[in-house]
Amino acid sequence: MKHISSRDNAQFKRLKGLAEDARSRRAEAATLIDGEHLLEAALESDWPLSRLLLQEGMENSPVVRSALAALGKRGLSPEVLVLAPALFKALSPVVTPTGILAEIPLHGPRRETDSTDDVLVLAGVQDAGNLGTLLRTAAAAGCRQAWLDRQCAQAWSPKAMRAGMGAQFRLVIEEGCDLVQRLANCDRQVLATSLADDSVSLYALDLRVPSVWVFGSEGQGVPTDLLALASRKVTIQMPGMIESLNVGAAAAVCLFEQVRQRI
Amino acid sequence: MKHISSRDNAQFKRLKGLAEDARSRRAEAATLIDGEHLLEAALESDWPLSRLLLQEGMENSPVVRSALAALGKRGLSPEVLVLAPALFKALSPVVTPTGILAEIPLHGPRRETDSTDDVLVLAGVQDAGNLGTLLRTAAAAGCRQAWLDRQCAQAWSPKAMRAGMGAQFRLVIEEGCDLVQRLANCDRQVLATSLADDSVSLYALDLRVPSVWVFGSEGQGVPTDLLALASRKVTIQMPGMIESLNVGAAAAVCLFEQVRQRI
Repeated sequence: MKHISSRDNAQFKRLKGLAEDARSRRAEAATLIDGEHLLEAALESDWPLSRLLLQEGMENSPVVRSALAALGKRGLSPEVLVLAPALFKALSPVVTPTGILAEIPLHGPRRETDSTDDVLVLAGVQDAGNLGTLLRTAAAAGCRQAWLDRQCAQAWSPKAMRAGMGAQFRLVIEEGCDLVQRLANCDRQVLATSLADDSVSLYALDLRVPSVWVFGSEGQGVPTDLLALASRKVTIQMPGMIESLNVGAAAAVCLFEQVRQRI
Repeated sequence: MKHISSRDNAQFKRLKGLAEDARSRRAEAATLIDGEHLLEAALESDWPLSRLLLQEGMENSPVVRSALAALGKRGLSPEVLVLAPALFKALSPVVTPTGILAEIPLHGPRRETDSTDDVLVLAGVQDAGNLGTLLRTAAAAGCRQAWLDRQCAQAWSPKAMRAGMGAQFRLVIEEGCDLVQRLANCDRQVLATSLADDSVSLYALDLRVPSVWVFGSEGQGVPTDLLALASRKVTIQMPGMIESLNVGAAAAVCLFEQVRQRI
């Protein structure tokens, strides 16, 4: 175990970059995950761990002990850094840190993709929390891929990781995609939510075939150039007098209608 | 129009209390809503407006003009306060204020409730954004009442209002409820999400009858004393390897399965 107590420590500065800055995460192809739940999710998905970061004084807490035991059981012994509490807190995205963080690479075990995968497509979802929640819902519904355009928040930020609850380890995520090109060359049905007159009720669709689902940002919805490439524009019927659903709610309704039809 | 340019102005101090403090909102039985969309939603629901707050220099913006026109068309002429930009920004919950805020009472037009209403019940949902989103989803799905316990965030905070997108004007919301007593005396089927073994698949339920839906906080789920009072514990089948859905996503899936069954 190596101890770090100075903010000038080069390793600490590098970690702070991973915690705070999307460019650092991209340059290093690494990110930080917080707490035992995400660590467990990473282990279950055979995701590699680069190093563990512990908060000084919490090395023997039940959470840390069980995390170390889980690593040991898998024969893993990553480098362990122990950080002074103030330094640890500077790296953690949560108000009450659990005392354990891990650095992981952005690329995990190789996963095959194929043309029968359901895909979540996001255009311009800039809020990291919303993005993480959408990935979580998609992974839960059985989607295997996610295509994100350049306007989306980074899927690997600590905030998106927290909201994703492990979804990032389950999906094959491609960021910075040219969605027009992807959708134009897509061999599956492309479905996009829209309030336009020519859209079809969600409940009238056949969702037993592989589907590519496109969702847009809260304010803007799905961009018109992508809507034009959809096989179907889809509306969720709403009996109440509300203009629209939150994008996370809309995606949950659509993706789980697909789950229902396939049971 | 009255101008306010000093932070020491008594009316400004009162408004700042409404913007920031749940106790002030309760004591005054009033809150603030931001932007033309919420204002429009309030007008459409015949909700009374106590006063309009405009940002100095934006009195003639298209947004403000169309809001004033909408008020005029309804024969409404509430008091108008014009605030210096720094003061206006101190009251607005958004980074880029639209230049218009309104003070509204917490109690709007009297709405009848009856025992055929679907009800959203929330236990311990402490995040104002999540709470607002849940109200929005429930209102969109046709629920007419919401019962919130003391542990929930306030439904009328500016942040919850923003996430609610007008849902607060559509639902009869009761806060600080004794949910044990409510559910014990409930004449409708009570449904609560749970991962327990004795729970039933959402898709196996008959949701054509009036239903009372109970959701808990993200971390804790539905408290056991409330689960014990449920007619059915409900599970959402998830093909993907994810532990659980976000509470907002879970509620959307459940409430729109109900919508689907009633079409």
